[in-house]
Amino acid sequence: MRKIYSLVALFLGLQCIVLAKTDTVQVHSDAMDKDVPNLIITPSGYSSSTTYPSVYLLHGAGGDYTTWARIADLQQYADRYGLIIVCPDAGVTSWYFDSPIDPKMQYESYVASELVAWVDDHYATKPDRAYRAITGLSMGGHGGLYLGFRHQDVWGAVGSTSGGVDIRPFPLNWDIAKRLGSYAENKEVWEENSVINMLHLLDGKTLDIIFDCGRHDFFYDANVRLHEKMEERNIPHDFISRPGVHNAEYWQNAIAYQLLFFNSKFEARKK
Amino acid sequence: MRKIYSLVALFLGLQCIVLAKTDTVQVHSDAMDKDVPNLIITPSGYSSSTTYPSVYLLHGAGGDYTTWARIADLQQYADRYGLIIVCPDAGVTSWYFDSPIDPKMQYESYVASELVAWVDDHYATKPDRAYRAITGLSMGGHGGLYLGFRHQDVWGAVGSTSGGVDIRPFPLNWDIAKRLGSYAENKEVWEENSVINMLHLLDGKTLDIIFDCGRHDFFYDANVRLHEKMEERNIPHDFISRPGVHNAEYWQNAIAYQLLFFNSKFEARKK
Amino acid sequence: MRKIYSLVALFLGLQCIVLAKTDTVQVHSDAMDKDVPNLIITPSGYSSSTTYPSVYLLHGAGGDYTTWARIADLQQYADRYGLIIVCPDAGVTSWYFDSPIDPKMQYESYVASELVAWVDDHYATKPDRAYRAITGLSMGGHGGLYLGFRHQDVWGAVGSTSGGVDIRPFPLNWDIAKRLGSYAENKEVWEENSVINMLHLLDGKTLDIIFDCGRHDFFYDANVRLHEKMEERNIPHDFISRPGVHNAEYWQNAIAYQLLFFNSKFEARKK
Amino acid sequence: MRKIYSLVALFLGLQCIVLAKTDTVQVHSDAMDKDVPNLIITPSGYSSSTTYPSVYLLHGAGGDYTTWARIADLQQYADRYGLIIVCPDAGVTSWYFDSPIDPKMQYESYVASELVAWVDDHYATKPDRAYRAITGLSMGGHGGLYLGFRHQDVWGAVGSTSGGVDIRPFPLNWDIAKRLGSYAENKEVWEENSVINMLHLLDGKTLDIIFDCGRHDFFYDANVRLHEKMEERNIPHDFISRPGVHNAEYWQNAIAYQLLFFNSKFEARKK
Repeated sequence: MRKIYSLVALFLGLQCIVLAKTDTVQVHSDAMDKDVPNLIITPSGYSSSTTYPSVYLLHGAGGDYTTWARIADLQQYADRYGLIIVCPDAGVTSWYFDSPIDPKMQYESYVASELVAWVDDHYATKPDRAYRAITGLSMGGHGGLYLGFRHQDVWGAVGSTSGGVDIRPFPLNWDIAKRLGSYAENKEVWEENSVINMLHLLDGKTLDIIFDCGRHDFFYDANVRLHEKMEERNIPHDFISRPGVHNAEYWQNAIAYQLLFFNSKFEARKK
Repeated sequence: MRKIYSLVALFLGLQCIVLAKTDTVQVHSDAMDKDVPNLIITPSGYSSSTTYPSVYLLHGAGGDYTTWARIADLQQYADRYGLIIVCPDAGVTSWYFDSPIDPKMQYESYVASELVAWVDDHYATKPDRAYRAITGLSMGGHGGLYLGFRHQDVWGAVGSTSGGVDIRPFPLNWDIAKRLGSYAENKEVWEENSVINMLHLLDGKTLDIIFDCGRHDFFYDANVRLHEKMEERNIPHDFISRPGVHNAEYWQNAIAYQLLFFNSKFEARKK
Repeated sequence: MRKIYSLVALFLGLQCIVLAKTDTVQVHSDAMDKDVPNLIITPSGYSSSTTYPSVYLLHGAGGDYTTWARIADLQQYADRYGLIIVCPDAGVTSWYFDSPIDPKMQYESYVASELVAWVDDHYATKPDRAYRAITGLSMGGHGGLYLGFRHQDVWGAVGSTSGGVDIRPFPLNWDIAKRLGSYAENKEVWEENSVINMLHLLDGKTLDIIFDCGRHDFFYDANVRLHEKMEERNIPHDFISRPGVHNAEYWQNAIAYQLLFFNSKFEARKK
Repeated sequence: MRKIYSLVALFLGLQCIVLAKTDTVQVHSDAMDKDVPNLIITPSGYSSSTTYPSVYLLHGAGGDYTTWARIADLQQYADRYGLIIVCPDAGVTSWYFDSPIDPKMQYESYVASELVAWVDDHYATKPDRAYRAITGLSMGGHGGLYLGFRHQDVWGAVGSTSGGVDIRPFPLNWDIAKRLGSYAENKEVWEENSVINMLHLLDGKTLDIIFDCGRHDFFYDANVRLHEKMEERNIPHDFISRPGVHNAEYWQNAIAYQLLFFNSKFEARKK
């Protein structure tokens, strides 16, 4: 689809300036030996003669690369803040892990390495952690922090909304056991892959962190525990507790604050 | 000052459309028998042929009606969201109380009754609680919730940033005792005028609430206690814990999220 | 008895210098129209040509003015720190209240006014709150804080060990209801006379406070709550949690730390 | 230096009785293959014909073996309680670890084995855990509990004032990462070497424990957590919360209570 739009742009003599648009792109993953679909939103007036910060939005379990575009008006945010927004597909329930037991589920490598390289290669991004952010909803909230904490060279700002930041209370849900093996038999793997147990990775490096959860979300308690543990460990972060449950209405609202957060960090770095 | 601007507008043939502007207006308080200065920011393209939501921003102890305009680019927010922003003066340390012991400190009456009436009379506001919000910083954070909880017929959305939501730990600070009498001798007065003790006023009415505090602010613990008490009482609210101390840098950042919040509530009501 | 000792001292030509001694003195209470016994320990080498700080030690329910002398070697402390130690009698279970229902139980007036005046009149004290301290055990721990909070002009340093700092959980114990009336029928009286509800009296005045409790004492939880409430209210204080139960072994140990505390405050004031 | 004093003593015919004194001694560490300076204070009237309890005082990060002598009047305490006080040097920021990555930082071995043996060999100590105590300030507070928990055969009483009892919130501070490697890459090492994670070592053995922290110290929260965890685990201990921050004024006051504590334990064992 991107090629078609580009042709149109050329045809209209706009050269480097194209209309606001949403591209659906297939990116090949060597790690999984398959193509993965992604949505990429560029700001109106997008021009390859300048560069833009990029924000990666991760979907939840059961969703796909189109989920975020159906929840929120991404184009409006891309325009307001001058952002490139990237929505990868995560194989329904990959949990953004490089699964130790399923070679077709290597979504950490895909998102953090293959996709970022591809996007930087094909779009006018600022190819720098200072201008890259990642966040997501539910499984994708886990993904935003999980990938963000483990790849601080890639993303300088990370977030989660309604995130599954502690997977241990959910040993039978959402195919997590298919990715990591059962909790009963793989305790250490589950411990090490729960975001709440990964704070040692944040050993003083500058990482901007925001996460939120709805008061009546089943992930709320885990998010409060993550917040409290970060306070104990002196890890700077924005935490928002607000009314709401685990649904699209909540995320539509939440993403507005997270994008405001990311934009304010990008703006601060320009100074 | 407003009249002069209007004359200019007329002279230019713009009639009801005036340029973006900041008015300094003196409003007479019958309650205190004195004039009080205020800053009023209208959005660019302000026209009395339409109506706008209004947001009241309260300054902290030691500040005045110009404080908020020096902290944040209020015009930008007025423009982005189409708001009228009102910054009253609060007599340095009035604490927005109707002081039982000082007839010249009747700032609850002034802000909640006299000023709101004057603003609605002189500006093209939507004169409805659904489209009025109030918030403030420090003493003004107390003020935002104190006035908001006690005048739910006036404001439908209320906030506080770094607010003094519990005055009891500070019996000798910021002239509170000059307004209420000493804590030792006026225990009940202090108890009844601490925001944290006023949750019974929120008896199920629809009031949108947001408050935040910096992790290393001396008011942080009290704000956490307020958040926890609201959770106990099933009172819906947004609470944000973020890095920071009690300073202008913090408030410049915080107000962006609060105005996003107020705007999203105003927008929701239009539907 | 004091007169006899003085005569002995004169007879021996020691004039103002007497041997270390423990006086048992009867002091008349106008408030109760009766004599009350007290123990007074002066330091070795006591001389009326100098002045000494004084410390009041209050006994618990069931005790009397001799209790503290049987628990701890008071003479050793009087000597080490150069203190006059005063151990009043408190009518077994007066709770150091001016009872609203029993005219023979006016021990607040007795200790805080009548006894202090008598002691300053008859002994070489420093008659100044800066050099007066009060503490006690159990009911007397309540008394140390109760009298100390209410008479900050009298005592500048106050303490409690294993104190009954919240009387509400014990409506049927130790004759409290005989002093205040039943809790069920006199809720406000009980509320106002529980130490934990009297923090408003500490409105920023300089009062040195120390209290401790044994981990397995039935008063432990109330003392932890008092500590936490003081932290909330920004009230400086030393709080010690240590092993132990409600017994003499605990108090023998605890009083050593409290007298070290009082002495260090007295010493600091000399500078 | 000790020999010179002894010669003076002999010359004066005092034989085994020497004046109160402070020795600076160099003790060779085989573990580090270097000499380490230490201060040793003996009580006035010290005589090798009797034996004394010994207390080890550990300095904080940035300090050295002279730090404690500049904070407090150690001679006065040595005299009052009849103690030998030992102040080792800890290489500025050794954290009293046997560093797995720096062979010149083996201060656990030095203090717990080499120095204790040397002191017992050269001074008239009671060479028994029952009469040996260890405590320290800040990094040395960590050291007092760290060494004390791991060497219960050496010390029978341990303490900490303003101690860094949880090192995990401070991954970039005070060279800890130079001793243990980075937290991000050596999570287990940091976990195992945080005092708060070492309570399993206290499996019912008789160890007297005291620790304190200032209310506004940056280590306060961690000390409160340690206290609460010890309460959960039924580990007897004295914990003192008092006003104050991380400074010498605080430690000058705190050490008085800790030495009172150690002395009372030594006295109790004589019975």
